[in-house]
Amino acid sequence: LPAVSSLRESDLVARLRRRVGTPPAWITIGIGDDAAVVEPPRGALEVLTTDSLIEDVHFRRAWTAARAIGGKAVAVNLSDLAAMGATPRAILLSLALPADLPVDDFDALVDGVVSAAESHGAVLAGGNLARSPGPLVVDVTAIGEVRRRRVLSRSGARAGEYLYLTGSVGGAAAGLALLASGADREALEPTLKECIDRYEQPVPRLRCGRVVAGSRAASGCIDLSDGLASAARQLAEASGTGLLLEAEALPIHPGASTWASRADLDAVQFAVAGGEDYELLFAVPARRERAFLAAFRRCRDLPVTRVGRLRAEPGAWISRAGSLEPLPTGFEHF
Amino acid sequence: LPAVSSLRESDLVARLRRRVGTPPAWITIGIGDDAAVVEPPRGALEVLTTDSLIEDVHFRRAWTAARAIGGKAVAVNLSDLAAMGATPRAILLSLALPADLPVDDFDALVDGVVSAAESHGAVLAGGNLARSPGPLVVDVTAIGEVRRRRVLSRSGARAGEYLYLTGSVGGAAAGLALLASGADREALEPTLKECIDRYEQPVPRLRCGRVVAGSRAASGCIDLSDGLASAARQLAEASGTGLLLEAEALPIHPGASTWASRADLDAVQFAVAGGEDYELLFAVPARRERAFLAAFRRCRDLPVTRVGRLRAEPGAWISRAGSLEPLPTGFEHF
Repeated sequence: LPAVSSLRESDLVARLRRRVGTPPAWITIGIGDDAAVVEPPRGALEVLTTDSLIEDVHFRRAWTAARAIGGKAVAVNLSDLAAMGATPRAILLSLALPADLPVDDFDALVDGVVSAAESHGAVLAGGNLARSPGPLVVDVTAIGEVRRRRVLSRSGARAGEYLYLTGSVGGAAAGLALLASGADREALEPTLKECIDRYEQPVPRLRCGRVVAGSRAASGCIDLSDGLASAARQLAEASGTGLLLEAEALPIHPGASTWASRADLDAVQFAVAGGEDYELLFAVPARRERAFLAAFRRCRDLPVTRVGRLRAEPGAWISRAGSLEPLPTGFEHF
Repeated sequence: LPAVSSLRESDLVARLRRRVGTPPAWITIGIGDDAAVVEPPRGALEVLTTDSLIEDVHFRRAWTAARAIGGKAVAVNLSDLAAMGATPRAILLSLALPADLPVDDFDALVDGVVSAAESHGAVLAGGNLARSPGPLVVDVTAIGEVRRRRVLSRSGARAGEYLYLTGSVGGAAAGLALLASGADREALEPTLKECIDRYEQPVPRLRCGRVVAGSRAASGCIDLSDGLASAARQLAEASGTGLLLEAEALPIHPGASTWASRADLDAVQFAVAGGEDYELLFAVPARRERAFLAAFRRCRDLPVTRVGRLRAEPGAWISRAGSLEPLPTGFEHF
C-alpha cells in the first residue's frame, strides 16, 4: 500500500481539495491560499473551539477505521458548539501524519472529516498538513455562530436548579472497553455493537443545543466529553454550587449495563465515570422546567432525563437507595 | 523537576489562565467554557489559518527553549495572516503534551504563546490540552480581519509582474544548520547568532502585509514558510505563470553566506531552498511599482528587494552570471 511519505505535500493537498465540495459564496478564499477568507456572521456572535484526537491516547488505528477517526474529530468539536447553543459554519483541519500512513487511510480520514462537517452544515475552509514522527494527530478547529441573547455557558446556573441530560450515558465507555478486550464486533449482540458506534461515531447534539438555547429555558450547559461526573462537577464549579445526582434516574445505556455486569463492575459508577458520550447536560431553573420540556419536544426523538440538581451545599454527590455517596472522579487527561 | 503528568488537566488550565491577561470586551466568553464566544469583525472579512509545530519535525526541545517554541508557533500563523494583508484578532492553542514535559516548560511555552500573540494585538481566546504519547505538538489557529477590497491572495498575479521580497533569505536555514551542528551559540559571531534568532524567533511581517494591502499596489502575496523557491513557485502556479529570479539581486542574509561558504555550499542555492524565513513575497505590476515602493516606506525600515519577475514562459528559473538555471526545489514536507 502506498504511504503518504511517497507523495509531496502539494499532492496531498490536491487529493484533499478533490474531496471537498465547491465552497459556498460566503467563503471568499478557501483551501489553497495562505489562509481562508470568510464573511463573518451578521447579527450574531461567533463561537470558536479546538480539540484534537491523538493516536494511542484517543484512538487506535488498529481498532477504528480512518473514516470514523476523521468523523469523530469533527463531532467532538461540534459537540462543544452544541453546548454553547451555536450553529456550525466552518472547520479547519490540522493533520500530523506518520510517514507510514497509507494514502487510502488519508483519503478515508479526510472523507470522514468532510462528511461529518457537511452533515451538520459546516464547511472545511482550510487547514494544514505536517509530518508526525510518532502518532497520527487530528486537530480540528470549529467555528459557529449564536444569537447574542441565546448563548449557553457553563457559569450561569444557580443552586436549586435541575440537571437534565440528553440521551444515555456509559455507552461510549463500554464501546471502548469492548474494543480493548478484542471483541469481534460482528459477533456482538446489538446493544453492545451500538456501544462501539457510540464510542466511534458520537453524534453532536446540535439541534438540541440550539432549540434549548432559543427557548432560553436553561441557565447553563456543558457537553459530556469526559463523562457525566466530570461534566456535572465542572458545571457546578463554574456556577459556584454543589450537586447531587440520582442513581436511579440515570439513563444508562443498556449495552453499558450489560458490559458492566459481565466485567463485574458497578453499572452506575461505570456510567457516570465513563467518558466520550458527548451528550449535553443542562441546568434548568424549576420555573423554566415546563418551557424546557416543551422546547425539548422539538429535538427529534432524543430523550431527556432529569438526573439530579445543583445545590447550595458544597461537594458532588450521588444518591442511591436512600443514601449519599461521593460522586466518582471522572476521566482525567493528565 | 515536576512534569505535567503530576498535574490534573484543570490545574494546567488554571496555570494557563493566570498567564493570560483580562480579555477585551469583544471576547464575551474566553478560556474555560466549552468554546470561546467573540464579537465578529464589523465591515471586514475574517481570515482563518492553522499551523502546527511538531517536536523532532519542526523543532527539538534540546536545541530551542520552550518559550521560543511557543512564540514561533504563533509567529508562523500570524505570518499567514500577514500574507493576506490581515490584522490579527484572536488565537486558539491546542497542545499535545508528553507526560515528561516539565511544568516549567509548559509555563514558558504558554508565556511564549501569550507574549507573541499580545505583541501583535491578538488575544488567546481558547484552546485544548491533551496528552501526547510521543512528540510535543503545538497547534495554533489564528483569526484576523481584513477589509474586503484589500485581501491579498496567491492567485491574482499576472505574467510580466515584478517579484518583491521583504527582509533577507537564508538566515533561518543557516540558524537551523548551526543548531544541528552543535555550535555553541554564545561563542558565535553576531551574524551567525542572528541566524539562530531568525530560525527560532521569526517576525511575522504584519505591518508590511497590511500597508501593501492598503495601497492595493500588489496583485499577489505569499509568505516564505518553505523557502523562496517554493513560495515563488506556488505564487506563479496559483497565477498560471512561469517565473525568473535574479541570483545577483537576492538579499542573502550575511550569516547565511558565511555559513554556506564554511559548509562548502553554494550560497544562492542554500538561500533560495532554505525554509522558515517567514518573509513576504509580493507580485507587483510595473505600473504599480512606484505606489508599492511608496507604501513600503511606511514599513519601519524593513528592506524590500526586487528579486525577479513572473513571466509567460512556463517553468521556474534563476538567472546567474548571464545564464539560466532551473530553480532548486524547496523544502518538501512529505
